[in-house]
Amino acid sequence: MTAPNGPLADLRRRLAEISDLERMAMLLAWDQEVMMPAAGAEWRAQQRATLERLAHERFADDHVGALLEAAVAETPLDEDLLRVARRDYDKARRVPGDLVEELAHAGATGHEAWTRARASSDFALFEPHLRRNIELRRRYIACFPEADRPYDALLDDYEPGMRTAQAEDVLERLRDGLVELVEAAAPSADDALVTGGPFPTDAQRRVVETVLRQVGVDDARWRLDVAVHPFASNFNASDIRITTRYNEAFLGDGLFGALHETGHGLYERQMDPLHYRTTLAEATGLGVHESQSRLWENLVGRSRPFCEWALPLLRSHLGDPFEAMDVDDLYRGVNRVELSLIRIEADETTYNLHIALRYELELAMIEGRLEVKDLPEAWDEATHRLLGLEVPDLLHGVLQDIHWGAGMIGYFPTYTLGNLMAAQLWTSLSNQLPDIEADIAAGNFAGLREWLRENIHRHGRKYDSRELLRRATGEELRVEPFLDYLQAKLLDTGQLAGRT
Amino acid sequence: MTAPNGPLADLRRRLAEISDLERMAMLLAWDQEVMMPAAGAEWRAQQRATLERLAHERFADDHVGALLEAAVAETPLDEDLLRVARRDYDKARRVPGDLVEELAHAGATGHEAWTRARASSDFALFEPHLRRNIELRRRYIACFPEADRPYDALLDDYEPGMRTAQAEDVLERLRDGLVELVEAAAPSADDALVTGGPFPTDAQRRVVETVLRQVGVDDARWRLDVAVHPFASNFNASDIRITTRYNEAFLGDGLFGALHETGHGLYERQMDPLHYRTTLAEATGLGVHESQSRLWENLVGRSRPFCEWALPLLRSHLGDPFEAMDVDDLYRGVNRVELSLIRIEADETTYNLHIALRYELELAMIEGRLEVKDLPEAWDEATHRLLGLEVPDLLHGVLQDIHWGAGMIGYFPTYTLGNLMAAQLWTSLSNQLPDIEADIAAGNFAGLREWLRENIHRHGRKYDSRELLRRATGEELRVEPFLDYLQAKLLDTGQLAGRT
Repeated sequence: MTAPNGPLADLRRRLAEISDLERMAMLLAWDQEVMMPAAGAEWRAQQRATLERLAHERFADDHVGALLEAAVAETPLDEDLLRVARRDYDKARRVPGDLVEELAHAGATGHEAWTRARASSDFALFEPHLRRNIELRRRYIACFPEADRPYDALLDDYEPGMRTAQAEDVLERLRDGLVELVEAAAPSADDALVTGGPFPTDAQRRVVETVLRQVGVDDARWRLDVAVHPFASNFNASDIRITTRYNEAFLGDGLFGALHETGHGLYERQMDPLHYRTTLAEATGLGVHESQSRLWENLVGRSRPFCEWALPLLRSHLGDPFEAMDVDDLYRGVNRVELSLIRIEADETTYNLHIALRYELELAMIEGRLEVKDLPEAWDEATHRLLGLEVPDLLHGVLQDIHWGAGMIGYFPTYTLGNLMAAQLWTSLSNQLPDIEADIAAGNFAGLREWLRENIHRHGRKYDSRELLRRATGEELRVEPFLDYLQAKLLDTGQLAGRT
Repeated sequence: MTAPNGPLADLRRRLAEISDLERMAMLLAWDQEVMMPAAGAEWRAQQRATLERLAHERFADDHVGALLEAAVAETPLDEDLLRVARRDYDKARRVPGDLVEELAHAGATGHEAWTRARASSDFALFEPHLRRNIELRRRYIACFPEADRPYDALLDDYEPGMRTAQAEDVLERLRDGLVELVEAAAPSADDALVTGGPFPTDAQRRVVETVLRQVGVDDARWRLDVAVHPFASNFNASDIRITTRYNEAFLGDGLFGALHETGHGLYERQMDPLHYRTTLAEATGLGVHESQSRLWENLVGRSRPFCEWALPLLRSHLGDPFEAMDVDDLYRGVNRVELSLIRIEADETTYNLHIALRYELELAMIEGRLEVKDLPEAWDEATHRLLGLEVPDLLHGVLQDIHWGAGMIGYFPTYTLGNLMAAQLWTSLSNQLPDIEADIAAGNFAGLREWLRENIHRHGRKYDSRELLRRATGEELRVEPFLDYLQAKLLDTGQLAGRT
C-alpha cells in the first residue's frame, strides 16, 4: 500500500497527527481526573505541557503554512477542511510555543492547587495559581491586538466567531428575565426526591445504566465512571467516556448528570466518519456541545413523558419512595425550582444565574476591574445580588468550580449559550418529530438521536455555530424560546400562579 | 525564572520531552489494557503509532546529534547521561521513522488481533498479524547489519549489551538442568490451595491490599487494578500502576501476581530523583526488571518466613481452609512443582522451561527456520518435548501469551535472565542482611527495600545489567545459584528425595 502524495495528502497526514496529539491530551486529562494517584499531578502537568507545546509546534510551523497554500481541494469536504484548518492556523501562528506550554502547565498545576484548596477550604492556596492563570491569559489576549474587547480572544477559543458584545447582550437580557421569573415563582412543595432517600448508589447505578443503554450507550464504545466533577471525554467515535457522581441523598446528581454527559458523548459518536482524525472532527463550539448535553438532561430527562417512562424503572430498582409516587409527583419532583448555592446542582431555571455571576466576575478579572485577592468577596456579593443567598463557606462559593484553576476562562458563557440553543432546537425538532413525546414515554429515543445526528452531530466543525443553528432552526440565537419554555414548565408544575 | 542555556541544558530539555512522550505511550498502553472500551482499539493503534514516530523523530534528528557533540558534562551524572543518550541515539539513527510508526501500529493491531483470536480460539485470525510483526522485525534487524546474529538486534532492545550467543548458552544450560531436576521431582501431595477454594475475590483483594501496603505500596502513588494479562506500568515515581487478576479457584494468581508487579513498581519508585525525566530514568534492562519482580514473588513471597507472616492474614480474611493449615502446609502449598501448560501459572521450577520453548520458537521464526503457519504445530511439539504434555487447545498453547501479537520478540529470554539474577541477588543480600528471614516473618520489608534501592533501583540506567550485577553480587550472570536454590526448596518441601 502506497500512501497518497501531494500537499493535500501531506496536510491531511499532519492534521491527523495533531488530532492524535490533542486526543491524547484529553486522555491525560481524563486519566488525571478519574484514575491517576494524587501524587502524580506534578508529573502529569509536565507531560500535558509537553504535549500541548508539541501539538502547537507541529501545527503552527511554516511547513503547514506552505501545505495550506499549496493544497488544492478535491472535494467539497476538502474545502471545508482547508477553510477551518486555515482559521486555526492563523490563530495558532499568533501564539508562541512557550506560552502554549506555560498555559498548559499552569492549567494542570492550577487544577491541582484548586483540589488542595478545596480540601483545606483555603483560598490562599489557590490565589497565586489563579493569578498566574489570569496573567497568562492576558499574555494570550495580547497575541490578538485587533480584538474589540480583551475577552473576545478567550471566548473565541470556546465559541468560534462569538464576540463579547453579542454574548453580553444575550447574557444580560436572560439574566434580567430570569431574575423576574424566579421572583414570581414558588418552589414545589413536593420534595420526596430530596428527602425520600437515601438512594443506594448501587441501585442508582443500575437505573443509570438501564437508561443510558436505552438512549444509545453501548459497552463496546462507552465507559461510565465516577468523578468528583463529572465531565465527558471523547477520544474518538469508538471510545467515549462519561462520568457522573452518585449522591445517596439526592437522586438527581447521578441520573441527570449521566444524561447530560451522554448528550456530549453522542455528539462525537454521531460525527460523520469522513471527519475522523481531521480538524473537522470536533464540535463546532462549546455552546452547541452544551446544547446537546442540556437537551438530554433537561428537555428529555426532566420532561413529563420521560418521567412516565422512568417511573417504573425507579420503582423496580429503588422501591420506596417511588411506589407511592405518580408520574406528576415525579415530574414536579425533578423540576423543583429553588435558589441554591452550587451551580451543578442548580435547577434549569436558576442555573443561568450562576453563569451570569461567573461571567461577570471573570470578565472583570480579565478587564482588570477585579483583583484575584478580592474575588471571594466579589463572589459573595454577586451571590447575594443575583441569587439572594449568603455564602456560608468557600466550597459553596468561589472554590466550587473546576474551570478557573484549570485555566478555562471564557468558558462559562457557553453553558448559557447551550441552554438557549437547546430550547431553540427543541422547538424545531418537536415540529419535525410529531411523535417525540409518545416516543420518549415509550423509552424510544432512536428518532431523536437520528434528528440530532442529521442536523447537528454529523457536521462536526463544517458550519460555525451560528450557521448550524440557522440551518437547524431557521433562527439566530434568541433568549425568548428558553424563557418561554421555563415559564411553561413552571406553570405546568404549579410553581407559577399565572403568566408574569 | 530563566531557563538555563547551552547545549547541555538544551539536550536535557529535549530528553525530558522524549521521556514525557515515552511515558505517555505507556499510559496509552495501560489504558488500552485496563480501561479502554474494546471498539477503540484501531484508533488507539493510530495514536500509539503517531506517538512512537514523533518520539523517534524528536530524538533521532540532527539537532540532537549536534547537542550531543557540543554538550560538555558538568557532573559525573551528566557523563552517564551523555554516554547512555549517545548509545540510544546511535541506535535510533539507524531506524527510519516510518518503520518505527509501522512497528508501533502493527504491534497495537496485532495485540487486538490476538485478543480476537483468543476469543474465538482461531489461530487464522492471528496468523497474518504475527507474520507482519515478524516481517517488520526483520526489517528492523536489517538496520543493524553488523550484528553477529539477526536476533542480537532484538535482544539488545530489551537487554542492552546482551548477545544471542551469551543468552543461548545460559538458556540451554538452564534448560538441561531443569529437565533433569523436574524429572527427579514429585509434586507435593498438599493441594489445598488449589482444591480448597473457592477463594472469594473480595477477600483475596483485601489480603493483597494488606500485603502490598506492608511491602510499601501507598494509595497516593500507586494504583492496583485488574487486568486479564497482569502487568506493571510506571509513569513516574509518583504514579505507579500495577495490575493483577483474581482466580477464585486458585489463591496464587492474585497474591503472587500482585507481589510480582509490585517488584517492578518499586524499581521505578526508588530510582534516584536526579534521573527523573532523563534517559537514565529507566531500568537498565528487562532482565534486571524481572529480577525484581521475581524476587518479591518467589524469593520473598514463596519463602517459609513469608508464609509465617501471611498465614494469620489468610486465616482472618479467608477463614477455611487456612484454619486447619500450619505454616509448613502453606509453604508446601505455594511451592508445588507440577508441569503445566500455562506459563504465567507455572511454578518457579518449571517456569523457565516455558521460556526455553518460546525462545526456541521465536529464534527459529526470526532466523527463517520456522514459518508462522507452522507455529501451532511447532508449539505443540516443543510442549511435548520440554514439558511432556499434550496441548488440548490454542488457549493452553500458542495463543496464551500477549507478547508476539504486540510485537515483543526478543523479550522472553529476559524472564529467565531475571530469575537467574534474582537468585544471585538473594545470595548477596542475605549475606548482608543477616536478619532478613526474621524480618520477613515479622512483615518488616524496610531493610530489603532499602538494600534494593541502594544496589539496584537508584542507579536507573547508569550501569548496564552486567555491571550492575557485578557491583551488587561480585559475580557474572550464572545458572548455578538458581538451580541450587530450586533444588534446596524442593528438598525442603519434600518434593525431592535427595540431591540429584
